[in-house]
Amino acid sequence: MRYPSHLLKLIDVLKKLPGVGSKSAERFAFHLIQSGQARLEEMATVIKEIPLMIKLCAECGSLSDINACTFCDSSRGQYGKMCVIASPKDAFMIDGTQEFKGFYHVLGHLLSPMDGVGPEKLNIEKLKNRILNLKIEELVIALDSTLEGDATALYIKEELKFFNLHISRLAFGLPMGSSLDYVDGGTLARAFAARNTF
Amino acid sequence: MRYPSHLLKLIDVLKKLPGVGSKSAERFAFHLIQSGQARLEEMATVIKEIPLMIKLCAECGSLSDINACTFCDSSRGQYGKMCVIASPKDAFMIDGTQEFKGFYHVLGHLLSPMDGVGPEKLNIEKLKNRILNLKIEELVIALDSTLEGDATALYIKEELKFFNLHISRLAFGLPMGSSLDYVDGGTLARAFAARNTF
Repeated sequence: MRYPSHLLKLIDVLKKLPGVGSKSAERFAFHLIQSGQARLEEMATVIKEIPLMIKLCAECGSLSDINACTFCDSSRGQYGKMCVIASPKDAFMIDGTQEFKGFYHVLGHLLSPMDGVGPEKLNIEKLKNRILNLKIEELVIALDSTLEGDATALYIKEELKFFNLHISRLAFGLPMGSSLDYVDGGTLARAFAARNTF
Repeated sequence: MRYPSHLLKLIDVLKKLPGVGSKSAERFAFHLIQSGQARLEEMATVIKEIPLMIKLCAECGSLSDINACTFCDSSRGQYGKMCVIASPKDAFMIDGTQEFKGFYHVLGHLLSPMDGVGPEKLNIEKLKNRILNLKIEELVIALDSTLEGDATALYIKEELKFFNLHISRLAFGLPMGSSLDYVDGGTLARAFAARNTF
């Protein structure tokens, strides 16, 4: 017995969410079927209105639902700092730590030749213009500690070598609350290399 | 920095899916934000049209997207059997095993006084009427092997004690492909009690 065709379509749509396989999509679908019409309409409306209600800031690339982007607020200019991140979500996470005050610049991608992401997709000219216009003195590179993150960080450093700019990158080391038993060799090696006087 | 209000609404809506917590809902939301408008509209339409396109059969309670419910097809009457299940999904799973041929009856709930589900929600009169009208000779109770499933099965058996009807329940025992090391004591006890000549 096959599922009704609309149910198959629903499962198919839900399966496109990240990390959702057939089993989870089925569970979501049966849950939705048993939801009331009002809830389904609310959900449909919220999803449909995403492009209308959530904009990417044309300046920094972060998310914003009002006309003025809070991440581009001019009060952030006093610190002379800019943080380079890969995705809009990172800005919220970093702002939450209260460790960084300044502007953000969302790249949108990390260099990954295998996936067809070359330097041209990073729009490095825009980053250069913003650094000059906003009189940035320190650029913090907050990218993943992966091969792609490393390559992108090196590329940015190389592109900006003639700028009068302090470039830093997030520290590598042990994550908080971790046991040495469970830390991989690469992390341990970086933590040793960057050890501090105690 | 708080998320834009529409993003919060989106996360809130997604968090209502079963087994989805804040972290997963956030991941889904950021994935959706980065999806194209066409995909968002497709998803919204599919969800909104659920009540229109997927109906619960008024007779047996199963899912059906056409006017006639395939689970109520009269050809199923020749076996004189009916299977009592808790949710519409179970009918597809059981039909898939090819071990049962007959009608289904979806209860929609299992008895659970803690959650306010008493006998009145099971609509046992409808089950009785169907058994009489369809001349059912064997009723297979295919409910969860939980406290709620046990209570519901006993309640049905009690209600139907004056019917000329063979009532059976799914077997309990070891699940296929399992090692005894990983089987719980309750399952092992039931498997012993119901052991077969080999």
